Amino acid sequence: MKILVTGAAGFLGANVVRHMLDDGFDVTTFDKAEHAIDGAETTIGDLLDANAVKSAAEGKEAIVHIGAIGDVYLAGENPALASSVNVVGSANVAAAARETGAKVVYASTWEVYGKPLADVITEEHPCEPDHPYNITKLAGERILLAADHLNDVPTIALRLGTAYGPGLRPNSVFRIFIDRARRNEAITIQGDGSQFRQFTHADDIARAFVLACRSDLRAEIFNIVAPEPVSIKQLAEVVVARHPTDIVYTEARPGDVEPAVVSSEKAASSLGWEPKVGFEDGMGRLMDVTPA
Amino acid sequence: MKILVTGAAGFLGANVVRHMLDDGFDVTTFDKAEHAIDGAETTIGDLLDANAVKSAAEGKEAIVHIGAIGDVYLAGENPALASSVNVVGSANVAAAARETGAKVVYASTWEVYGKPLADVITEEHPCEPDHPYNITKLAGERILLAADHLNDVPTIALRLGTAYGPGLRPNSVFRIFIDRARRNEAITIQGDGSQFRQFTHADDIARAFVLACRSDLRAEIFNIVAPEPVSIKQLAEVVVARHPTDIVYTEARPGDVEPAVVSSEKAASSLGWEPKVGFEDGMGRLMDVTPA
Repeated sequence: MKILVTGAAGFLGANVVRHMLDDGFDVTTFDKAEHAIDGAETTIGDLLDANAVKSAAEGKEAIVHIGAIGDVYLAGENPALASSVNVVGSANVAAAARETGAKVVYASTWEVYGKPLADVITEEHPCEPDHPYNITKLAGERILLAADHLNDVPTIALRLGTAYGPGLRPNSVFRIFIDRARRNEAITIQGDGSQFRQFTHADDIARAFVLACRSDLRAEIFNIVAPEPVSIKQLAEVVVARHPTDIVYTEARPGDVEPAVVSSEKAASSLGWEPKVGFEDGMGRLMDVTPA
Repeated sequence: MKILVTGAAGFLGANVVRHMLDDGFDVTTFDKAEHAIDGAETTIGDLLDANAVKSAAEGKEAIVHIGAIGDVYLAGENPALASSVNVVGSANVAAAARETGAKVVYASTWEVYGKPLADVITEEHPCEPDHPYNITKLAGERILLAADHLNDVPTIALRLGTAYGPGLRPNSVFRIFIDRARRNEAITIQGDGSQFRQFTHADDIARAFVLACRSDLRAEIFNIVAPEPVSIKQLAEVVVARHPTDIVYTEARPGDVEPAVVSSEKAASSLGWEPKVGFEDGMGRLMDVTPA
């Protein structure tokens, strides 16, 4: 199956590309940043260049659309940039898919739900995003799902848990904690550290993209989130257990989405997706390979 | 009070500018299209040009942000354009307001709610837009409301009813019906004509912008929708009563938002807004002045 993967130079995109190659997909990458992944054909292009997206999509059966401003802090600093890349970029992907006949699998996020209104968040939970990151990620998702019913572009949106794994950005909480602890500097936690996340390993997320590309389902949204809630404090403690250092608590930051237990039951029953990497195991592997 | 009104060359924008001038506001306009409104200072500029927006906003106490791809058909044909103007453009307005200290009053739409889940739609109703028009209008609203809590930009969003009044676009349903009936051509209704809208007169909408600019409220959303539901069939009958012609029914179009009764109780109690122009009266005045 010939596919195009946008955002392939990023942490999650590169992981997905490698898994899809291993799984026998014929992968072409697309990213504005220089990159090269063994076994994939490389395209350097901007999601804001509709023609570049269209020409990269020619002859592909699916577009895995991961390219985005995925850095929450950058989106908060520059909402216009997040709006361009995450919304206009997704509209350009929809247009390319409409023209070339490709299906689309979109990397959405659990953060689109915003403030939780229920103990368990399924795909039916209302979405009330309140930060330029999750606002624009949701708008991109909806633009693509609208192309499914208006323009016959088969679309699946995967609302991903907070991803971790090898190749994380240096400004991710994982890298910051690991890097500081290794230098024996204190780890800083915003808030009391009780806020939890369902950290989901990049390998598990990559398998969800494989399953979605192979599925005949369309106009569907799936939560792809590991079930285990892990507090930021627990995360810090796992790091400190290997690289002993202090943990310091500071004020909570504004715009942080409140935690909620997100259910991936639908992905289990419809796509056959189940996470395989437990948190302690995944963290151990991450600390093994994180560059000093 | 010095204000900037974006989208001032459009139907709604021009109406709002005229009312705000009558009400004593010191108005500067902003629009990409050539325009001139007696008594207002004119700026020709593109919402996608962040610097142009910022420089137009300098010294203003409020930005009334109406500029948008407001044509649902155009947004459906070109989702990337709607995403740019409606989302990135709103982010540029938020950035300009952040820098200049202006408050923002945003022209949102009742269509952001999507499929109704209740008989009466208040501002608390979930938003599930499914068309590039309402998806991007909601994202623009949320980007601005996020700037209220993240960047201290006082923001009010007005979710407007379907507006009508003098100066409507030639491709609006009102103009199409009136123009065809005058030429004695049949009026075409998509669906059975039972779908209703709470048509809201531009004069009433303009008063809501006046009230919102004068209000000290912020981080608030108000429905600004006339209470009277009018079916498309009734609209056609009002036109045909003055200009007799046939009414023909065709298939419903995809992406049309289902009707719902939207309540403006909150605007009445918090802003003191109440619509004054009844539908028959408003239609009579519209037919009096619509150019042949």
